[in-house]
Amino acid sequence: MPRYRLLLEYDGTPFRGWQRQENGPSVQAALEAAVRAASGEGPSVVAAGRTDAGVHALGQVVHLDLARWWAPERLTGALNFHLRPHPIAVLEATEVGEDFHARFSAVRRRYLYRILNRRAPPTLEAGRVWHVPVPLLAERMHDAARCLVGRHDFTSFRASECQARSPVKTLELVHVRQRGTLIEVRLRAPSFLHHQVRNIVGTLKLVGEGKAPVDHVRAVLAARNRAAAGQTAPPEGLYLEGIEYRDETIR
Amino acid sequence: MPRYRLLLEYDGTPFRGWQRQENGPSVQAALEAAVRAASGEGPSVVAAGRTDAGVHALGQVVHLDLARWWAPERLTGALNFHLRPHPIAVLEATEVGEDFHARFSAVRRRYLYRILNRRAPPTLEAGRVWHVPVPLLAERMHDAARCLVGRHDFTSFRASECQARSPVKTLELVHVRQRGTLIEVRLRAPSFLHHQVRNIVGTLKLVGEGKAPVDHVRAVLAARNRAAAGQTAPPEGLYLEGIEYRDETIR
Repeated sequence: MPRYRLLLEYDGTPFRGWQRQENGPSVQAALEAAVRAASGEGPSVVAAGRTDAGVHALGQVVHLDLARWWAPERLTGALNFHLRPHPIAVLEATEVGEDFHARFSAVRRRYLYRILNRRAPPTLEAGRVWHVPVPLLAERMHDAARCLVGRHDFTSFRASECQARSPVKTLELVHVRQRGTLIEVRLRAPSFLHHQVRNIVGTLKLVGEGKAPVDHVRAVLAARNRAAAGQTAPPEGLYLEGIEYRDETIR
Repeated sequence: MPRYRLLLEYDGTPFRGWQRQENGPSVQAALEAAVRAASGEGPSVVAAGRTDAGVHALGQVVHLDLARWWAPERLTGALNFHLRPHPIAVLEATEVGEDFHARFSAVRRRYLYRILNRRAPPTLEAGRVWHVPVPLLAERMHDAARCLVGRHDFTSFRASECQARSPVKTLELVHVRQRGTLIEVRLRAPSFLHHQVRNIVGTLKLVGEGKAPVDHVRAVLAARNRAAAGQTAPPEGLYLEGIEYRDETIR
């Protein structure tokens, strides 16, 4: 059975998240419906990372098995045709070996979090950014975040409903930069805990606005207590930016 | 009577354009309603450039007169409060002299046109770009556009309903560059004819996809005939990027 890897982009706004739900639209259900409409087959689709309600993807990766062989270009076109009018696009389809698994073969995930830091509300970027009207110092946030790099117990940044076996994760990169009124936070790790990125960003925001000292993040990390961290940053600023596999980076 | 200059950003999607209409929403009507709600006064608002239906602004400039004096910061906040839920934001308010006129004092307008050049449809950028699925060569478009710089009769790129007295305009800059799958076209001139930017972009697209030679644009310009140019590029890719006044650049 040929297996295909798809590179997906989506606007998370109208969805309850990646995962199929009893009620409410999901990216997975919309994609599976498009696969059924295009191929007449009904396989499940497996994603590299589940995104929460309202979270976007610039480079989600999924795999699926089809009984019939498709030229990847044709599969891409057929899926995009049937995905309309959902804000989901297949950027690329690739035939892969059956040892490829979108989730288990992934060695690294990259996330981007975007903050619009100005008094005026977003217009063109509404639903695409976290609007923070109080001035933030991006450099201060960057300095504060550095202590998170490495292997740590991230209990303080973990959602209560997180199902990961261990709270110990290795954060490889965290980078904060300012571009005009946008502040971009980039993070990279083999895997993340549930809400880890959003809880980190919520804590960095406290440092950026001067409500907490730069070494606050280190103290929060050491506390191993969710109550020590800041608010969970809202989903609309978060983007699953890309997934890395052993031999290649997808996006 | 104190006069205020406002710097505006808006998503043009839900509007029939800048100008107040008999029926249908306009940016001007939404802004004037917010001014009334905030101040109890009912002045007209004058814009540097009228944007068409669906056209966005990153840096529209308007002026208005109020009987009562407002601290600019407070005026900005009050207008943004009353503009909700319209996708219009006042980025800045400044008190100006009564010789300032948003339209007549403007010495230069800057536009940005964004093309998403990939097979897959837009998701996060839907309504923010012109989706062109056939491959375009941005460099070729840039080379073709160079002949437009200078003072020319732009009849070929003028909408039939254009009300300008003369079709002769001076284009100071046109620049095409590729950024990933985005192609950005930037133009700058003291003033533009109606649909001039969109007709130029529609013609450059023909060159970019190889349907017309690089010197096609020169021939279209020389023809002084609207029928010679390409299609009018759709409004959703167009942004009024900024306005320049004698002593300063706003945005």
